[in-house]
Amino acid sequence: MINLQNFSEDCLLIREQSPLVHNITNYVAMNIAANGLLAIGASPLMSFYEKEMEEIAQISSALVINIGCLDDTQIAGMRAAAEAYHRLGKPWVLDPVGVGASKVRTQTALELIRNWKPDIIRGNASEILCLAGEQICSRGVDASCSSNDAIEAAKVLALNSGAVISMSGGTDYITDGQRVETIRNGSPLMAKVTAMGCTASALTGAFAAVSPHDAFRAALHTMALMGTAGEIALSKSTGTGSLAVNFIDALNNFNPLTSSKLIRQ
Amino acid sequence: MINLQNFSEDCLLIREQSPLVHNITNYVAMNIAANGLLAIGASPLMSFYEKEMEEIAQISSALVINIGCLDDTQIAGMRAAAEAYHRLGKPWVLDPVGVGASKVRTQTALELIRNWKPDIIRGNASEILCLAGEQICSRGVDASCSSNDAIEAAKVLALNSGAVISMSGGTDYITDGQRVETIRNGSPLMAKVTAMGCTASALTGAFAAVSPHDAFRAALHTMALMGTAGEIALSKSTGTGSLAVNFIDALNNFNPLTSSKLIRQ
Amino acid sequence: MINLQNFSEDCLLIREQSPLVHNITNYVAMNIAANGLLAIGASPLMSFYEKEMEEIAQISSALVINIGCLDDTQIAGMRAAAEAYHRLGKPWVLDPVGVGASKVRTQTALELIRNWKPDIIRGNASEILCLAGEQICSRGVDASCSSNDAIEAAKVLALNSGAVISMSGGTDYITDGQRVETIRNGSPLMAKVTAMGCTASALTGAFAAVSPHDAFRAALHTMALMGTAGEIALSKSTGTGSLAVNFIDALNNFNPLTSSKLIRQ
Repeated sequence: MINLQNFSEDCLLIREQSPLVHNITNYVAMNIAANGLLAIGASPLMSFYEKEMEEIAQISSALVINIGCLDDTQIAGMRAAAEAYHRLGKPWVLDPVGVGASKVRTQTALELIRNWKPDIIRGNASEILCLAGEQICSRGVDASCSSNDAIEAAKVLALNSGAVISMSGGTDYITDGQRVETIRNGSPLMAKVTAMGCTASALTGAFAAVSPHDAFRAALHTMALMGTAGEIALSKSTGTGSLAVNFIDALNNFNPLTSSKLIRQ
Repeated sequence: MINLQNFSEDCLLIREQSPLVHNITNYVAMNIAANGLLAIGASPLMSFYEKEMEEIAQISSALVINIGCLDDTQIAGMRAAAEAYHRLGKPWVLDPVGVGASKVRTQTALELIRNWKPDIIRGNASEILCLAGEQICSRGVDASCSSNDAIEAAKVLALNSGAVISMSGGTDYITDGQRVETIRNGSPLMAKVTAMGCTASALTGAFAAVSPHDAFRAALHTMALMGTAGEIALSKSTGTGSLAVNFIDALNNFNPLTSSKLIRQ
Repeated sequence: MINLQNFSEDCLLIREQSPLVHNITNYVAMNIAANGLLAIGASPLMSFYEKEMEEIAQISSALVINIGCLDDTQIAGMRAAAEAYHRLGKPWVLDPVGVGASKVRTQTALELIRNWKPDIIRGNASEILCLAGEQICSRGVDASCSSNDAIEAAKVLALNSGAVISMSGGTDYITDGQRVETIRNGSPLMAKVTAMGCTASALTGAFAAVSPHDAFRAALHTMALMGTAGEIALSKSTGTGSLAVNFIDALNNFNPLTSSKLIRQ
C-alpha cells in the first residue's frame, strides 16, 4: 500500500527543490510535458542535441527518454544522454512509445535498456508486453502474450531489465518483479488526451529526482498523482480539450494532504 | 448536397473503428491535430522517420502529409510514406502549407503530387492557386490568378492531379473537377487559431480511412464537421485561446444527428 | 516613461498591417508563440529549413531566433536566416534560451550576436548575465555576476552588442545601454507556463516589424503588453493550465486604450 505521508513528502519536495528534469521527448508531448513539470514545481529542460547531453546531464537531476517521434538526430541524443546519466548514477526513465510498431523503434528501446539500464520503464500494456516478449523470445520461449498476461510480462521485464515497470491503463501496475502495487484512479477519457502518458513519464522523472534511490516509490507516487489529479480535472471538464487544461490546473493546485484521500489501490 | 445520413454514418464509423491515421505534420500542429483525431474517435500516429514508414503504412488506414515545417529529414520521410501508401492503395491527404513561399516548398508539394497522387489536397485558396498555377504555367498558359479564380483553379488542379480538392476559407469548396460542393459554416476567428487548417487535414485523413474509395465524400464530411464543431465551440469562447480548447471539446461531444442541422451549404 | 499613445498605435498597427513574423523557435514554444502572434493580429511563419531562409526573409517583416532546442539542422537555419535579415536590414530578435547550460548553446548565441547583430536580445536575468559575462571576460575582466548585477550586465551587453536588451523577470528591464525602462506588471505564475518567455520574444518580433527603426520602443511595448495581458488573464485563471489559455484570449481581446492604464513602471 502507498504510504500517504511519503507521498505528501515527495510532492512537497519537488516544490521545494524544483529539480531540473531533462526530457528527450516527442514533439506532440513537449508542451504539455513541460507544463506538467512546471505545474508540480519541477524545472523542465527539453533538449536532444547530442553535443550538449554530457553538460546537461551534469546539471540535471533526472532524465526522461520518450521514443515517440524518432529520427537519427534524436536517437543520437538519446544514446549520449542515457550513457551519461547511467555513468553518473543519476536516475532515468524510458517511455517506449509505440514499441513494436517498427523494427527501429523496438531496437532503439531494447538497446537503451540493455546498454544503459533505465531505473523505470513507463508504458502501456501493449508496450510492456512487446518489450517483455522480445526478451522472452530471446530466451527461446515462443511468446504470444495477450493483454491478460500483462502483469506477468511486466514482472518478467522488471527482473530481466532491472527496471521498475510502471504500466498505465484502466488500472496502473507498478512492479519491480516481486512487489506489485496498483493505482485504480483516473478515467478512460484521459487516454483521449494526447501525450497524457508522456506527461506521466515526465512527472516520473521529477519523482525519481527527489527519490533517486527508490525507483519503485517514484513510479508509484507519480501514478497516484496522475490518477487523482486526473479525476479532479475531469470533474471540471466538458471534453478532452478542457480536460487537458484542467489537468495542468489540478497538478498546479494539488494538495497532497487532502487529495491523497482520493487514492484507490 | 451533403447526405446527412452518410455524414452521421461516417462520424459514427470513426468512433467504432478508431482508424489509425498516420500524420507527418509540422511541429506547430502536432498536438492539436493529435487531440482532434482522438476527439473524433480516431487513433493518431505521428512519425516522419524514413526507416519506419513502410511498417507504419502496413498497419495504418490513412496518411496525412503536411509540409508546414520542412527539413531534409521530414522530406525523406514524406517521400517514403507517400510511396508506400500509394503502392498499398491506402488513401492519403496532402496539406501543401505555405506552398509558393519558397522553391523547395513548391517543388516538394509538386513532387509528392506527381509521383504518388494524393487522394485529397486540402489547402487554402492561395495554396490551391499556387499549385494550379504551376500546372497551368507548365501547360503554357500564363496564369496570374486572383482570388476569384480560386474555384476554377481548384477544378483544374483536381483534373490535373486526380485528387479531390478541399479548399478552406470563408466558404469551403470541395471539388473533383466536375462536382463542386460548398460548406458555409465556421467563423473567421477559426483562422486565428494556429494549425486549425492542419487539424482539418488530419481529420480528413480519418474520414478517408472510413471512406477509402470516396475521397469526395471524405473531404466534404470533414469540412462539415470542422465548420459546425467550430461554430459550437465559438459560441462558448471568449477569444482564440478558449476557442482552441472548446473546439476539441466540441469534436469530442459532437452529435452528428442533432448537429448536422447546423450545416449550411 | 512609456508613451501610451505610441503604445496604442503600435498595437493597432500590428492588427492593421498583420506583419509576417518569421520564427525559428523551439518545439515547446511553437504552438503558443504562433497563437500569441495570431492573437495580436500578426501572421506567424515557423520555418528553420536552411534552403528557404533567403526567400522567406524576402517576404517577412521580422525574424525571431530562439535557441531553446538546438540541433545541427536548426543551427544551419539560424545562421542562414540571421545573415539574410541582417543583410536586408530587417529587424531580428534573439532569445538565447538556456545559454550557459552548454558550450554549444553559448557559442551559437555569441556567434549569432557577433556576426549578424540582432536588434533586440530578449532573455531572463541569468541568460543576460551569461552573455554579458562572456563579453566582459573576453575583455579581461573576471566577472562573477550576481543577480543584482543584472541591470549593469544588461547595459554592458547592450553597448557591446549594439542590441536593445529586453530582460524579463519580476521587473522587466529594457535598455540600450544608456536608457533603462522598467515594466512592473505580470505575475510569478506566468513563469510557470512553459514558453511564456519564448512568446514574449515572438511578440517582440511583431512590434519590431511595425517599428523597425526603434528597437527600444518595440521591446518596451512588447513587455507592457505581456505584463498587462498576463494580469488580465491571471484574474480569470485557476492555475497555470487555464492561465495559458486565458493569456491568448487576453491578447486577442486586448484594448490598448483602456488596458494601458494597467501599466506600472
